[in-house]
Amino acid sequence: MRIDLNSDLGEGYGAWRMGDDAAMLGIVSSANIACGFHAGDPEGLLEVLAEAARRGVVVGAHVSYPDRVGFGRRAMDVAPATLRADVIYQIGALAGLARAAGTRVAYVKPHGALYNTIAADAGQGDAVIDAIRAVDPGLVLMGLAGAPILDRARAAGLRVVAEAFADRAYTAAGALVSRRLPGAVLHDPDLVAARMVRLATEGVIEAQDGSDLHLRADSICVHGDSPGAVAMAGAVRAALLDRGVTIAGFA
Amino acid sequence: MRIDLNSDLGEGYGAWRMGDDAAMLGIVSSANIACGFHAGDPEGLLEVLAEAARRGVVVGAHVSYPDRVGFGRRAMDVAPATLRADVIYQIGALAGLARAAGTRVAYVKPHGALYNTIAADAGQGDAVIDAIRAVDPGLVLMGLAGAPILDRARAAGLRVVAEAFADRAYTAAGALVSRRLPGAVLHDPDLVAARMVRLATEGVIEAQDGSDLHLRADSICVHGDSPGAVAMAGAVRAALLDRGVTIAGFA
Amino acid sequence: MRIDLNSDLGEGYGAWRMGDDAAMLGIVSSANIACGFHAGDPEGLLEVLAEAARRGVVVGAHVSYPDRVGFGRRAMDVAPATLRADVIYQIGALAGLARAAGTRVAYVKPHGALYNTIAADAGQGDAVIDAIRAVDPGLVLMGLAGAPILDRARAAGLRVVAEAFADRAYTAAGALVSRRLPGAVLHDPDLVAARMVRLATEGVIEAQDGSDLHLRADSICVHGDSPGAVAMAGAVRAALLDRGVTIAGFA
Amino acid sequence: MRIDLNSDLGEGYGAWRMGDDAAMLGIVSSANIACGFHAGDPEGLLEVLAEAARRGVVVGAHVSYPDRVGFGRRAMDVAPATLRADVIYQIGALAGLARAAGTRVAYVKPHGALYNTIAADAGQGDAVIDAIRAVDPGLVLMGLAGAPILDRARAAGLRVVAEAFADRAYTAAGALVSRRLPGAVLHDPDLVAARMVRLATEGVIEAQDGSDLHLRADSICVHGDSPGAVAMAGAVRAALLDRGVTIAGFA
Repeated sequence: MRIDLNSDLGEGYGAWRMGDDAAMLGIVSSANIACGFHAGDPEGLLEVLAEAARRGVVVGAHVSYPDRVGFGRRAMDVAPATLRADVIYQIGALAGLARAAGTRVAYVKPHGALYNTIAADAGQGDAVIDAIRAVDPGLVLMGLAGAPILDRARAAGLRVVAEAFADRAYTAAGALVSRRLPGAVLHDPDLVAARMVRLATEGVIEAQDGSDLHLRADSICVHGDSPGAVAMAGAVRAALLDRGVTIAGFA
Repeated sequence: MRIDLNSDLGEGYGAWRMGDDAAMLGIVSSANIACGFHAGDPEGLLEVLAEAARRGVVVGAHVSYPDRVGFGRRAMDVAPATLRADVIYQIGALAGLARAAGTRVAYVKPHGALYNTIAADAGQGDAVIDAIRAVDPGLVLMGLAGAPILDRARAAGLRVVAEAFADRAYTAAGALVSRRLPGAVLHDPDLVAARMVRLATEGVIEAQDGSDLHLRADSICVHGDSPGAVAMAGAVRAALLDRGVTIAGFA
Repeated sequence: MRIDLNSDLGEGYGAWRMGDDAAMLGIVSSANIACGFHAGDPEGLLEVLAEAARRGVVVGAHVSYPDRVGFGRRAMDVAPATLRADVIYQIGALAGLARAAGTRVAYVKPHGALYNTIAADAGQGDAVIDAIRAVDPGLVLMGLAGAPILDRARAAGLRVVAEAFADRAYTAAGALVSRRLPGAVLHDPDLVAARMVRLATEGVIEAQDGSDLHLRADSICVHGDSPGAVAMAGAVRAALLDRGVTIAGFA
Repeated sequence: MRIDLNSDLGEGYGAWRMGDDAAMLGIVSSANIACGFHAGDPEGLLEVLAEAARRGVVVGAHVSYPDRVGFGRRAMDVAPATLRADVIYQIGALAGLARAAGTRVAYVKPHGALYNTIAADAGQGDAVIDAIRAVDPGLVLMGLAGAPILDRARAAGLRVVAEAFADRAYTAAGALVSRRLPGAVLHDPDLVAARMVRLATEGVIEAQDGSDLHLRADSICVHGDSPGAVAMAGAVRAALLDRGVTIAGFA
């Protein structure tokens, strides 16, 4: 029994901080690191990459639409050729910083609205897949467990990692419950930790209607953008270790 | 007799064009390609990189201060650690795009105000040198012939390329005549071409006071941002070839 | 018989130029001036505003999504409250520059993807309407002739100006033929000029299927981003004047 | 006895927060509000402006160099004509938002590196003065007590407000002790409060060498970017009120 724990890091910008990167690097096995398009300035990114290198945390490129003021959370109708180049640029930039920090980029995880759009949109999804193949076909794509993008990426020859969200409710069909609906986000660390233990050990998560959802996840995404989030991430980690699950990067 | 011809390319941005990259890629042997900080969007950069790859033109990273609206031409008091990370980020981004375009970044040429500042400023200069060494010590630094930065870079273990400016007047001491002074920029293609032939064949350029200036240059910088500039660059190339000088990248 | 001629101006950015603003200010009666979000830097905007003031051309705020690299042409899922503030900010910024240039902002014309989206989208459309009312209810909204946004704005108490596009084909139902379809854009200056004369004098434009489309337009939009575009705009102006149509801003 | 208390507010950006604007608006009489160039997005600015309006806090435009990633803290060699337009743009943008929020911009305070540069640099200083006069000559300029910029602004017909910094040490000559020197920043709220009481009631502040420095200040700048800073600002306010000093905006 083994699973990866991932979190979004490096999301400060210039004088602005976000989350507690140092604390999270003690909890996760993989760090999705911003590449400057939704967050992250080069100097701050270099610091978090160096810390990830010191702790042996696997590093991924958290690529985004070019929308800093919107934190990459707003859908944008970016043409595939443009998106492909944007993704290559971001991976390359983070790879350069990673090399200087003594580590390397092992995977790519699209961020925010791009993540949601490519889960099902073939045009933008293929642009991301093509970008990864063009810059380094050995890079792994991390995406939503059960989403069509993972099949498309696999068919294109990429290795993929399927992730589940620790603090999100799922429908019986395996989709995330929309954040606009009540109960979409779970706040009880013990409950969340118990759910993730069951996911890691049985491959099952209880859906919102009470049914058992079989979900194959290689990685669990935990948040670190508030003290409560860090505590919840720590609870998930502790519960997994306590039940004998190994937490380790997939790379 | 052999010399490199270089020019600044990839300096459009989104819907905005600048210069005639395709024409210049038929003239030069090395292309200083913008990295997004003063100019260049990923999609446009990918296109110029692909064209450079097709034509066998050597590619360099034209790194800049983060000042798009000022086109990187304004001095900025950037702290060395910040500048170092900014340069690494830009080199990495262009390297990623270059890989996708079937080529690679062979050298680094700082742009605009950064170029001028590091010619003599050790703090920012060492930041650029450190950045290059951190991301890829095999990268060559291109700088102003005769400037202290080249000695510092050499002492730090980098290979350097010294460049002269085709259309600029020089003082007897070997400095560029300030653009604020009359006669700083030369406009006659024949005169410019003849000067560059003498530089390439004899290592001599006539200074503004009429004296002979001995200048060792490995590369000549020509501009391409206007039809007149492209014509002058073509005249320099034709004159060099006519006199038996081989035009070839240094990489 | 009287109609307004408008064009998008001030769309350079820093070192980058776009279109021939000076030529167009001799042709149009109203200038939609960029506000910095898709194009336009303060210094360049101040220049075009001063020239508009000298020539008595009416000035409008050409507000956009915050997407400079995409030139405001990409749909963005911006929340209404955010969009409302973005539009106020842009109107205010241009109003400040206009005051310094000796003129004033008389109207607002959304740009690019925002223009298209609010033609029918009530959420973003109402955000734009609210923004105008909040900053200056005397400002006029310019929009697509026949689009629902004009009715919504009128109902909210704003004065509106309906515009037709000189070089675009229309469907029999009064919509613009999509740019993705053949024949969507007209290139013959004489044909375009004749169509606009008929529109200004009879209120009729021939639809793509040959039928007569009755369209009430207060203004005609002409482009100026290429030498051919300037020539076409001049042809429209000359033909209108030749037929006794007065060209004048609506303000 | 009466003095103004001012602080820098509205310095978040998109998803990033900075300082506790709501708390500070209960302490100060004037708010220097970011204009988007070093910090501040339109929606966030609208919120802080609305809260300032509700509380009757006077609003100023905190104009900056265009350097978001550097938070406007890095000197930039911006040409005067460019700077003038940048300042007009920012004042206009904030004025538009202020109008929508039911208040108005009453003064201008340059931020960060621009503040420091214009204290003595006539070229950039006059650009700021010209900008203010061009957009609204009734706007007040807030600057460093004792700095030449205030005399230049007064000579140009502007009303000025001189400010002192609550937590900074002064030289006997009336300059701020450089942040690079020990003791430049004071951390004891009681000491700082006592110094500001003496400044407000006697016009005297103890210089770093123990001598009495006579300083005429119309306003005191307090910081709010950390819990400790808010507490110190509250201590200054309480001490002033306790000693019978009226705290009120100058507008």
